[in-house]
Amino acid sequence: MDNHSIKKITVVGTGVIGNGWIGRFLANGYDVVATDPAENAEARMRAAIDKAWPAIEKHGIAPGASKDRLTFEPDLATAVADADLIQENAPEREGIKRSLLAEIDSFAKPEAIIASSTSGLMPSTLQADCARPERVIVAHPFNPVYLVPLVELVGGKATSPEVVKVAEQFYHSINMKPLVISTEIEGHVADRLMEAIWREALHLVNDGVATTEEIDAAIIYGPGLRWALMGPFLTLHLAGGEQGMRHMLAQFGPALKLPWTKLVAPELTEELSESVINGCEQQTEGHSISELEQRRDDFLVELQELLEKYWPGANLNGKI
Amino acid sequence: MDNHSIKKITVVGTGVIGNGWIGRFLANGYDVVATDPAENAEARMRAAIDKAWPAIEKHGIAPGASKDRLTFEPDLATAVADADLIQENAPEREGIKRSLLAEIDSFAKPEAIIASSTSGLMPSTLQADCARPERVIVAHPFNPVYLVPLVELVGGKATSPEVVKVAEQFYHSINMKPLVISTEIEGHVADRLMEAIWREALHLVNDGVATTEEIDAAIIYGPGLRWALMGPFLTLHLAGGEQGMRHMLAQFGPALKLPWTKLVAPELTEELSESVINGCEQQTEGHSISELEQRRDDFLVELQELLEKYWPGANLNGKI
Repeated sequence: MDNHSIKKITVVGTGVIGNGWIGRFLANGYDVVATDPAENAEARMRAAIDKAWPAIEKHGIAPGASKDRLTFEPDLATAVADADLIQENAPEREGIKRSLLAEIDSFAKPEAIIASSTSGLMPSTLQADCARPERVIVAHPFNPVYLVPLVELVGGKATSPEVVKVAEQFYHSINMKPLVISTEIEGHVADRLMEAIWREALHLVNDGVATTEEIDAAIIYGPGLRWALMGPFLTLHLAGGEQGMRHMLAQFGPALKLPWTKLVAPELTEELSESVINGCEQQTEGHSISELEQRRDDFLVELQELLEKYWPGANLNGKI
Repeated sequence: MDNHSIKKITVVGTGVIGNGWIGRFLANGYDVVATDPAENAEARMRAAIDKAWPAIEKHGIAPGASKDRLTFEPDLATAVADADLIQENAPEREGIKRSLLAEIDSFAKPEAIIASSTSGLMPSTLQADCARPERVIVAHPFNPVYLVPLVELVGGKATSPEVVKVAEQFYHSINMKPLVISTEIEGHVADRLMEAIWREALHLVNDGVATTEEIDAAIIYGPGLRWALMGPFLTLHLAGGEQGMRHMLAQFGPALKLPWTKLVAPELTEELSESVINGCEQQTEGHSISELEQRRDDFLVELQELLEKYWPGANLNGKI
């Protein structure tokens, strides 16, 4: 089995995420069958694809790609019968997803791959009721799926390593950045980080410290600009001057004991420090801090022009 | 007193943040005096400004602005004597900052404003040893200060409201986005959110779930792209379809009870839900979700072109 054997794709569930997947699959020249039990699902799906299509085209589409290559099939069994890949996007409830995946598993071709878009549930749990759990995998995307490239791939205890490999090749082939996560945890990786911010933000609103608008502004005009380019580690590596992360941990390590968030930090052991410092140094191998700072700065100048073009602060953030 | 009375600025402490401030003040046409007790501080400061200057010029400088309008003065008392605004950037240790601010307070003109760049300490604590605490304020910037516009302004119990107002006008006049925070907490607002992500990221490394490189990639290619445009609230408001945040809280509210991060969430009461929903609706008043999605999508298309130009993934992220 390789990723070239994926020719027909079925999307189960046509909410925001399901429709986002349809956009990405169509953009990459696939035939897509979609199914959803909700009333008017087809009309809403087609409206969503029509709306997204100009941005999809601007982002780039494969030769022969067309939104006319999309079929709606209300019957689940019929919809998945011929698919090589089935992408499931049911509501984020364990019971719903488990029984739906078991149904899909019973209707699909034996060699089809079944991918769940779950943001938080673990694949070992989701595949538990399937007769062929080895072809069930988590492929967690980010909204809007037709534009944001990250997809987290997580296999469960019963998932075949071959399926993980084929999925990685396939999602890469549709211009995504697959991140294979080998340790199953609730929330995978990106949502652990997003959920931490989200919960801290809810605490700030709950404690009356800031409004949603102020919190959003505190992200957009500060750390958010940098996060488009660098994650939390490289951001701090570049903030530490020529000594990078080593200096930052010495300078801000003690702050991990302070109540700078409601989240209790791990103990900053010698081992953890070294993992973080070595990680940053490996990530930037062959590039001086100075060179990376230069690139970051050039990026930030152009990014702010872009932000001004599409999101002039005054319109949305009266306060800031 | 108004912000036009600020003509001479002294920067105390010329590390990464102090030098960043010098760049921003010079870019806006100010004369700047800098002081730092470290050996070779002047040479390192001038090298940092030289390096940043091309990006500063590209971002835009005021008429008459020049990096020649920077003077280094090793003696603290002399350095601050004539300043209308003193920006303090000592290491993030309460003892060091408190005694330094008290010294600055004793040497500065009575009407000068003293701003601390502290990322986490509270102004009421920092101003405690000053004879004129009413002119001491926190003005917390983000690296690189000469390009990132956010500055958090927090007054302490003894800070005069007039000083907060003048500071807000002044930082706005140098092309920053001042966020006035009326409730003092450790870490202010943006660092609460950054620290939450940072601690969760350290847990992930510590638990062996992901490397620093994988975590950075999980931000850059996913949520980070959106955070350049929108904070955590608007991001979810737009992910909720036409019903926005109301739908998201119904769909993902229960997940606050799940272990999706090590941070315990607040109780999602009716009151908190309404604060969040109303906040998002006020932020986007007069703009349909559909219109905002369109703008977000156009932004994301161009942002990814920019990212590819300055930060081609392959160079820095072998894995992803």
